[in-house]
Amino acid sequence: MKEIASIAALANRFSALPGVGRKTALRYAYAVIDMTEDEVEAFCAALRDVKSSVRLCSVCGNFTDREVCELCASRKPEKICVVAYPKDVAAIEKTGAFDGVYHVLHGTLSPMDNRTPDDLNIRSLIGRLSGASEVIVATNPDVEGEATAVYLARLIKPLGVKVTRIAQGISMGSELEYADAVTISQALGRRTAI
Amino acid sequence: MKEIASIAALANRFSALPGVGRKTALRYAYAVIDMTEDEVEAFCAALRDVKSSVRLCSVCGNFTDREVCELCASRKPEKICVVAYPKDVAAIEKTGAFDGVYHVLHGTLSPMDNRTPDDLNIRSLIGRLSGASEVIVATNPDVEGEATAVYLARLIKPLGVKVTRIAQGISMGSELEYADAVTISQALGRRTAI
Repeated sequence: MKEIASIAALANRFSALPGVGRKTALRYAYAVIDMTEDEVEAFCAALRDVKSSVRLCSVCGNFTDREVCELCASRKPEKICVVAYPKDVAAIEKTGAFDGVYHVLHGTLSPMDNRTPDDLNIRSLIGRLSGASEVIVATNPDVEGEATAVYLARLIKPLGVKVTRIAQGISMGSELEYADAVTISQALGRRTAI
Repeated sequence: MKEIASIAALANRFSALPGVGRKTALRYAYAVIDMTEDEVEAFCAALRDVKSSVRLCSVCGNFTDREVCELCASRKPEKICVVAYPKDVAAIEKTGAFDGVYHVLHGTLSPMDNRTPDDLNIRSLIGRLSGASEVIVATNPDVEGEATAVYLARLIKPLGVKVTRIAQGISMGSELEYADAVTISQALGRRTAI
């Protein structure tokens, strides 16, 4: 049996989400049939709203729905925690172990994927260093994350700002996004100079 | 950190999909930010299209985008395979082991959940029996599926139509939707009289 065209089309859209295969996508599409029309409209509105309201904070590069994000607006920019992606900010904030500000690179250095420093949100980080006493590099403890940390240390230390790295309490090769709160807290607490 | 309101709202919508928890829903919502505006519009259109175009076949109750579904329109209604949900039709069709028509109950009998025969698409099944020689009950081999099969057998056999049950080649307690094609084929091939 051919799938009904509209169901197949919707399943294709769901397949674009991270980790969603064809079977799961079809399951989601079937679930939409059972929604009320109001629910589908609300779903559409939520999709559009995210796309239209979410932008990057002009200071740190994290997702926000205003010009400057809540964290940049309310915290002292003394310690700057550098992460690869917005989801990493969420992971660290959940621990409550850090009260400084963040800087989101939107990626890591990767010669393999042709990602150079120019592709990352690094320039604006340099512009934020005047009032900062410490930059904590909290990229994932994998090859690309380490390379990015080393690059940032070489770039920033000559400017007289201390650069630290979260401790390798997070096991090598795993991803920050999935680490538990205690592990992230310890990694922040035992950060070491690069 | 509070999630941005629009992201939290979209994550809530994604949570309504089957098997999607809060963490996965947030991951999906973040992925939407990375979509282009055109992709988001296409996503919305696909959602609406499913809701507006998909309805129930007036003969068998399966999902379709026309008055009578493709299968009912093209196949002889000699053998009628009764399933609980539209996804079960898709699972059986994928095996290619059945060339008759289907009847979708949209549920199973369940005294626990207060689902009686009146809540299922059973009345129209009785109306289809005049040209039929056999009704194959392919509900899941669990308590509710078995109860539904027994009920249908008692209802239909007095009308002079043979009622069979797919073989218990599918392990007890598992779900038809996830069975592999070989298992489903065998269960169809070894169907037994109730």
